Amino acid sequence: MASAPETTDATPGNAAAEGMKTFHREERLRTAGGLSVTDITEQVQEAVRESGVRDGVCCVYSPHTTCSVRVNEYERGFLEDFSVLLRRLVPTEHYYAHDDWDRRTENVSDEDMEASNGHSHCMSMLMGPAGESIPVRDGVLCLGRWQRVLFLELDRERERRWLVHVVGV
Amino acid sequence: MASAPETTDATPGNAAAEGMKTFHREERLRTAGGLSVTDITEQVQEAVRESGVRDGVCCVYSPHTTCSVRVNEYERGFLEDFSVLLRRLVPTEHYYAHDDWDRRTENVSDEDMEASNGHSHCMSMLMGPAGESIPVRDGVLCLGRWQRVLFLELDRERERRWLVHVVGV
Amino acid sequence: MASAPETTDATPGNAAAEGMKTFHREERLRTAGGLSVTDITEQVQEAVRESGVRDGVCCVYSPHTTCSVRVNEYERGFLEDFSVLLRRLVPTEHYYAHDDWDRRTENVSDEDMEASNGHSHCMSMLMGPAGESIPVRDGVLCLGRWQRVLFLELDRERERRWLVHVVGV
Repeated sequence: MASAPETTDATPGNAAAEGMKTFHREERLRTAGGLSVTDITEQVQEAVRESGVRDGVCCVYSPHTTCSVRVNEYERGFLEDFSVLLRRLVPTEHYYAHDDWDRRTENVSDEDMEASNGHSHCMSMLMGPAGESIPVRDGVLCLGRWQRVLFLELDRERERRWLVHVVGV
Repeated sequence: MASAPETTDATPGNAAAEGMKTFHREERLRTAGGLSVTDITEQVQEAVRESGVRDGVCCVYSPHTTCSVRVNEYERGFLEDFSVLLRRLVPTEHYYAHDDWDRRTENVSDEDMEASNGHSHCMSMLMGPAGESIPVRDGVLCLGRWQRVLFLELDRERERRWLVHVVGV
Repeated sequence: MASAPETTDATPGNAAAEGMKTFHREERLRTAGGLSVTDITEQVQEAVRESGVRDGVCCVYSPHTTCSVRVNEYERGFLEDFSVLLRRLVPTEHYYAHDDWDRRTENVSDEDMEASNGHSHCMSMLMGPAGESIPVRDGVLCLGRWQRVLFLELDRERERRWLVHVVGV
């Protein structure tokens, strides 16, 4: 399993301490539901530009428990593959205690009673954290060639928002 | 799969460079084992308050390889659903080379020999990073309506700890 | 599922605002393919040392869509277990629209046509974000006893790179 690393110190850099900045923005979108994916890369990069941060870290965050922000390729075939995988691992047609209104007593909301989303919570928890932290270098997100910042809707069609926070020099 | 974003720049903000702060705290807890989940939101928010950081990022981190810090809803039904899902995807009753004492030679500890936890490692690796990074705005964690910061025990009942680090202005 | 937290404020600390630093480095490696895992902990710690940051956050990041940076134990048995799990959940021998050259029209590259990697994308997306954020305290990564920083190759043998960005005082 193990392989020896070939360490090449390609671009070391120690930025000056002066002018530390922090920048915050919230964006809104309406998702299409059904594991729809929105490419938000340009908006995140635009926020980095406006922040004036040259070197630092950009945190992109979903404040929703049934959405996810993830970095990966935006290619329709792959997004379809991932959707198939997620539905196979976390089937919608399944018993979820979260959706059992004979049992549930906590966090009861009309919204949830209208449309069950126990599977959406399980999907987002399985997929990991609510957001991604991406290094910023020379005012640009350090995304690889195929990397895009994606906003994933794991629940039905809804009004959503995401946050971006940039910290650096 | 794709949906067009409706960009509304809701709360842009560029904080002044002066007074950058960093704050660190460690908390301890005793977990109940069996995929128990502890809601640590109030303690994380209290750390943010004490840090004096108004705008920045809060990193909540588990220094354990068989625990996880995750942001999601704290609702018993959902936590039970997720526990069922995780046990289905990563069954405890399975061969794990990590627990095979006829083979294993690395990182041998009495602790591990007493209680096998190969499945716990697999669960935490599948679930993602050791922690979550949450934006802080106006001295408050930018959690959504249902979001809570959760500490997940994926192994047996144990003494555990988690770290919180806040960076910002 | 729930357990009461036993809060002990072990090491609170509010660092001075002066001397905020940001440090960036890129490292290269050649992976072995086949879900190989490289332990990059020493190089990450070395970057933290060179950054001069005593208190802050270290972001370790993979700019590749079919690799992952994760914190967990480096023990060959466990890495084998995880590899078995990942192949079971995301089988290589499966239909992936990403690899269907009769259908695919986006992001077409010779590289992908030579070797299908739809399963690698699905694995990395399922595993979570591209990187990990680790708190730094007294110039040292706050890794737990068994935690190591791991670079995972989810695709075939390739030239790869990873980034480390440290922000703090």
